[in-house]
Amino acid sequence: MERARVNALHTDLYQLNMMQTYVNKGLKNKRVVFDMFFRKLPFGNGYAVFAGLENIIAYLTGLEFTSEDLEYLASLGSFNAEFLEELKNFRFSGDVFCVKEGEVIFPNEPILTVETRMIEALLVETALLNIFNHETLIATKAARIRHVAGDKRLVEFGARRGHGLCASLYGTRATYIGGFDGTSLVEAGKRFDIPVVGTMSHAFIQSFDNEIEAFRAYSEENKDNIILLVDTFNTLKSGVPNAIKVARELEKQGVKVKGIRLDSGDLAYLSKESRRMLDENGLQEIKIVASSDLDENVIHDLKHQGAEIDMYAVGTRVITAFDQPALGGVYKLVEVIDSEGVRIPKIKVSDNIEKIVLPGRKKLYRIVNRSTGKAEADYITRYDEELPEEGENLLLFDPFQPWKQKTVLAYRAMELQEQVIDRGKWCGSPRTLEQIRKHREASLELLWDEQKRKSNPQEYYVDLSFKLWSLKRKMIEDKRKQYNN
Amino acid sequence: MERARVNALHTDLYQLNMMQTYVNKGLKNKRVVFDMFFRKLPFGNGYAVFAGLENIIAYLTGLEFTSEDLEYLASLGSFNAEFLEELKNFRFSGDVFCVKEGEVIFPNEPILTVETRMIEALLVETALLNIFNHETLIATKAARIRHVAGDKRLVEFGARRGHGLCASLYGTRATYIGGFDGTSLVEAGKRFDIPVVGTMSHAFIQSFDNEIEAFRAYSEENKDNIILLVDTFNTLKSGVPNAIKVARELEKQGVKVKGIRLDSGDLAYLSKESRRMLDENGLQEIKIVASSDLDENVIHDLKHQGAEIDMYAVGTRVITAFDQPALGGVYKLVEVIDSEGVRIPKIKVSDNIEKIVLPGRKKLYRIVNRSTGKAEADYITRYDEELPEEGENLLLFDPFQPWKQKTVLAYRAMELQEQVIDRGKWCGSPRTLEQIRKHREASLELLWDEQKRKSNPQEYYVDLSFKLWSLKRKMIEDKRKQYNN
Repeated sequence: MERARVNALHTDLYQLNMMQTYVNKGLKNKRVVFDMFFRKLPFGNGYAVFAGLENIIAYLTGLEFTSEDLEYLASLGSFNAEFLEELKNFRFSGDVFCVKEGEVIFPNEPILTVETRMIEALLVETALLNIFNHETLIATKAARIRHVAGDKRLVEFGARRGHGLCASLYGTRATYIGGFDGTSLVEAGKRFDIPVVGTMSHAFIQSFDNEIEAFRAYSEENKDNIILLVDTFNTLKSGVPNAIKVARELEKQGVKVKGIRLDSGDLAYLSKESRRMLDENGLQEIKIVASSDLDENVIHDLKHQGAEIDMYAVGTRVITAFDQPALGGVYKLVEVIDSEGVRIPKIKVSDNIEKIVLPGRKKLYRIVNRSTGKAEADYITRYDEELPEEGENLLLFDPFQPWKQKTVLAYRAMELQEQVIDRGKWCGSPRTLEQIRKHREASLELLWDEQKRKSNPQEYYVDLSFKLWSLKRKMIEDKRKQYNN
Repeated sequence: MERARVNALHTDLYQLNMMQTYVNKGLKNKRVVFDMFFRKLPFGNGYAVFAGLENIIAYLTGLEFTSEDLEYLASLGSFNAEFLEELKNFRFSGDVFCVKEGEVIFPNEPILTVETRMIEALLVETALLNIFNHETLIATKAARIRHVAGDKRLVEFGARRGHGLCASLYGTRATYIGGFDGTSLVEAGKRFDIPVVGTMSHAFIQSFDNEIEAFRAYSEENKDNIILLVDTFNTLKSGVPNAIKVARELEKQGVKVKGIRLDSGDLAYLSKESRRMLDENGLQEIKIVASSDLDENVIHDLKHQGAEIDMYAVGTRVITAFDQPALGGVYKLVEVIDSEGVRIPKIKVSDNIEKIVLPGRKKLYRIVNRSTGKAEADYITRYDEELPEEGENLLLFDPFQPWKQKTVLAYRAMELQEQVIDRGKWCGSPRTLEQIRKHREASLELLWDEQKRKSNPQEYYVDLSFKLWSLKRKMIEDKRKQYNN
């Protein structure tokens, strides 16, 4: 398993201040449950794609304070000896339940649940959200672009525009989970076994006396991977004619030019003209690759215009999630376990009803209608609740408009969270990136096309069991009485 | 000097393909010059703040291929033995010239210049741009927010929303260069000696039986750093009254509450009401901290509404550069040195005149008017060109509208690039983050207020010497003749 940089001080200072309070008050072993979730889908998309679990597990299982860390904390002057001593042997000792990487996920459902001592649950919040928010955001953006690209090849070219080296590296992994076919970033190829692609830059061509010499030199030394960049000087007057000339020269040696790449200008027009010129010269097999600030909207337009593009290379817009570069994932206390082991659900009431947290430990199911094979809704229950027998009917209702109801006949319930850490030790099953990618595909198969479209997708339902809904209502009522009288 | 993760495979595949061509064609020692620059200021700002040099130097001076890297490359099947052998002892052996971190920079001027063998210059492009684009983007966003915040304290709270762990860490460093006063991210405090701040979360408060108990417990254990979060239940009915009660209890023990924090709701209204309630209770010394999706626009509005806020905590919007999460930094070939050592300037002509690269090695100056003490323009010359004597007059003209001219009387010219790497070895002077931060301040002092305002700033001029302008014009003319006849 690939490890992220594990650093116990990758946390917000307030976590340590709060931990100190807990330790000094003799509450360090108090156990709690936190849920990680997000409230709003990014990009106006109909779903998100979960990514980041591998880095989260590496972080949680590798967590410890170095002596350098402790010296630094001591130097701040606000932490006392008892607390620093406690940190010396600190390990994450809790249980973690999480949906699979590659799973399609929705707002307000528990993606990852931590049950552990309060001081541990606090410390890890920052890094968990940091990893989740980043990787899930990029995987979701990638899935959106994949949806629009259809069966065209799609590769990631954005390393130079990511938010630093690690953002590009882990971002690339997320694009692959989201449905991209390859990347230009070699390190990502090595670490994650993602196919790597790429051929030449404008600088390479300029460094030769002229374009055709550059094409020839490159082709001689990279016979299996010839994609010629044709827009350095003038695409239709120089680049494509030179590519055609070189392709014919190479043909005699039995070497094939695989493609040409357009990286500027009007891609719709240039691709159609290039296609025509190639075809007129009997070079139907040469593919056309396009890059240049592409995203799902530009690709959608290009397809609409009949652009002759076989492969799209997407950079900046996917690796930075350009139109919405942050996912608002949060991590909230939902339960406190008292010294007798009694579980006390907690709620945070907000003025905005949609921001109210779902109290208590819960279970998360995807309800699949056996007759359509499609998912009807996600369904959240209290932890100790039983579903009706599979194959029987299930009543679903909108938690904000409970008079909107629907009965699902003959359903199948898939539990989405599985335990991945057991008392601090990884207990999940190892999954390759290929398997994760396949899981996303299977997970998306359960949705209707209307829920997957780029613009104004049909909303997918996330419903609550009657028991959970009632608990939430009662707790809100109690809070209101306490503070709003 | 703090080191970034150095990885020779953090590069785009095409760099390696091109390098192989060079090696196999016997051109591996061909020397070239590349400039790194950007074309458009982000956020509609009037300037950018350069950051990233420290990581760039760590990368360049630490660069080598591990045996694992070479095995991976061999496994791809497209690299031959001669080339892989070459990589075995590969080091960056070139010269690098760069502006100082913290420097105010503008479009189309050479920020960093590399002179080295083509195969080295190619390999490093991806990582150099990756670091530059990220850190300069965040430093610039931070400087914008600092400008609007004026003399208020400004701290970074965004770790959980950065693009992964390293993006948050190096992004935090960039916010400090840009003018922030502190961060919540403890690791950034330890690594970069940035002041760390933070107190408590909603979860902490909820984990106690009630709000005032949480306030008391926290205050007893963190006496020097009491900032009470007052919006967990109801800011004005519960949080602020409880904070006042606790402040009075603590007063008797000689302990002071430093502040309260508002993290939701209408910050303008709540801050004014809270201020009034605190003041009525003789607690004028308690400061008000605000957080909740702040950026330069929200802070501007809050100040306009007379909000009573002493410290702003900014998260997502600065750490992701939310409104424009990518800087379009590029790295372009500008000169090839032939086997006799003759320097041949190179140009890349684009249909868009503003995208045409400035040919040849160059020098970059900031021209300061001695009578106003303000910068008149940046001024780019050919490398071997002399400026008129300092104190004499200098003719400046707009490179795109050369009839717009201005003579600067009695000027001082500051050369902005300095050599930082000499034949592969770091040769710069070490600078602390404090010095870098001060340098930004001094650098901004040279600009007029009109160039620093948030909206529609006055444009700062980047001018060319007549010699450089003429060279560029001639080379464009030559290219046009070659391809557009």
